[in-house]
Amino acid sequence: MQTFADRLIDSVRKKGNPCIVGLDPRIDLMPDFIRSGRETPSRENFRAIVSDFHELVLDTVADLVPAVKPQLAFYEQYGLGGMEAFENTVKAARSRGLLVIADGKRNDISSTAEAYATAFLSATDFEADSLTVTPYLGRDSLAPFAEACAKHAKGLFVVLKSSNPGSRDFQDQPLAGTGRPLYEAIAAIISDLGKNMLGESGYSSIGAVVGATFPEDGRRLRALMPQAIILVPGYGAQGGSAQSAAACFHENGLGAVVSSSRGITYGFSDRGISRKAFVTSVRDNTLRMIDEIVKATSAPTPVS
Amino acid sequence: MQTFADRLIDSVRKKGNPCIVGLDPRIDLMPDFIRSGRETPSRENFRAIVSDFHELVLDTVADLVPAVKPQLAFYEQYGLGGMEAFENTVKAARSRGLLVIADGKRNDISSTAEAYATAFLSATDFEADSLTVTPYLGRDSLAPFAEACAKHAKGLFVVLKSSNPGSRDFQDQPLAGTGRPLYEAIAAIISDLGKNMLGESGYSSIGAVVGATFPEDGRRLRALMPQAIILVPGYGAQGGSAQSAAACFHENGLGAVVSSSRGITYGFSDRGISRKAFVTSVRDNTLRMIDEIVKATSAPTPVS
Repeated sequence: MQTFADRLIDSVRKKGNPCIVGLDPRIDLMPDFIRSGRETPSRENFRAIVSDFHELVLDTVADLVPAVKPQLAFYEQYGLGGMEAFENTVKAARSRGLLVIADGKRNDISSTAEAYATAFLSATDFEADSLTVTPYLGRDSLAPFAEACAKHAKGLFVVLKSSNPGSRDFQDQPLAGTGRPLYEAIAAIISDLGKNMLGESGYSSIGAVVGATFPEDGRRLRALMPQAIILVPGYGAQGGSAQSAAACFHENGLGAVVSSSRGITYGFSDRGISRKAFVTSVRDNTLRMIDEIVKATSAPTPVS
Repeated sequence: MQTFADRLIDSVRKKGNPCIVGLDPRIDLMPDFIRSGRETPSRENFRAIVSDFHELVLDTVADLVPAVKPQLAFYEQYGLGGMEAFENTVKAARSRGLLVIADGKRNDISSTAEAYATAFLSATDFEADSLTVTPYLGRDSLAPFAEACAKHAKGLFVVLKSSNPGSRDFQDQPLAGTGRPLYEAIAAIISDLGKNMLGESGYSSIGAVVGATFPEDGRRLRALMPQAIILVPGYGAQGGSAQSAAACFHENGLGAVVSSSRGITYGFSDRGISRKAFVTSVRDNTLRMIDEIVKATSAPTPVS
């Protein structure tokens, strides 16, 4: 089986862009037509609303983008109904040929990390194609995920530099001795974990998360981890521009994927919007993002 | 309503010990009697086995310890059946008067952190009394959790120094300027976030996770965060002794809780063990831990 990195790069080439649609279920922001008749907060209504909303989004963007990024926190807040919808969203996305990045920021030590890897990177209800993880617990906490990626042809995105202002608090701290920021020490481990997992594309399946809001850091990390695919959140609603996201790309337009959530799925102004107008809004928002990102990154011409 | 810290300290006083039973569902380690007749891996069997196992453990330890710590990773690995069992375990524990520390090592930025706080610290299917979180994303990622704790009388445990060898990789890194380890910079933020959330016990509901395997770090962090309750994992199976766990306590025997998982629930040698012998094993293991920890920490005499 192809590595995750190769599948992602292939899909970026085929779709002609590196854009990811983020799926953040927030029922309070969804259009009335999707909630109508099931306003009571219940497991069944949570499951139905969140599933239906995302199936509609997936149908609208499946031919446009290479992957989607469901955010686990927003599913978990709806309890069991939310997790049933998560299963549904992930399966619906994969059945439409979209790669799934489960955004869970998971991690723990040894056998517990293995359990998270089993949950999201093997044949379970929640099986995705890749998972975001946090690095604070150290290299031995990342190793079980890397092993699962090698075994099941899955991918990992380790948070290096997040898109929020608070990313400066610890991630940017210069270390004694080198004077270099903490995130560079973590980048070295990501490179090392990925070096035996290179696919035909030249990229490894151990990637990194680097926010679009800090282009200088993006440029530095791009250079430090030439074989890592960078997942770039923070574009759009969080203030990252296409130009700043472009800092995480190689000159050939590959090496990174850019995610937008609210700007795509909640970019309409009136919750009374019709189903048809909602579909148009999601599609237009996606096409606008694709246009901006492709222009900024000189992505390759789509294969017909 | 009492703060989380006050409820935990009260319960430690009433039970006469600061021991926490960790709940790590691992069906492959469970006794045959709990799996018999439902060996097929299915949502229903996962739900039933994991729920029944933990209800039996809870019935066995509810009169002995102040709290339990279900590990979300091990529940998530069983998919929807696992999450149904998580809901069951949490409700079963709380209905037996046990406080629940949801061990999820969650975190993310801004509104996503709020969604995790909603999921585990408000009235949802997964409502616990407290949650473990990771600090890498910075102070503004911790703030929404602290707000939820203040609003709903819940608690937080921020991972500072984990019990694994890899905790040295980043957590111990001395920072330029101060030369002090990264975890001390995070400890300062934990103290600051908790300073307006002190209960009558004098402890705040913003606590920290410090592994039993590094007593020198435990002593330093105990001194740096006098009002934080420290959750101490790594006792027993991971090699932390009662003496090293004691480094995280105040001299009056308060200020920390110690967790053991495998050593309590999987401390038997033969999977053919009877139900009665399993209950005896769990109870004996818990009593032995209590005895060791109480001796090492000079915990207060139980209130009759």
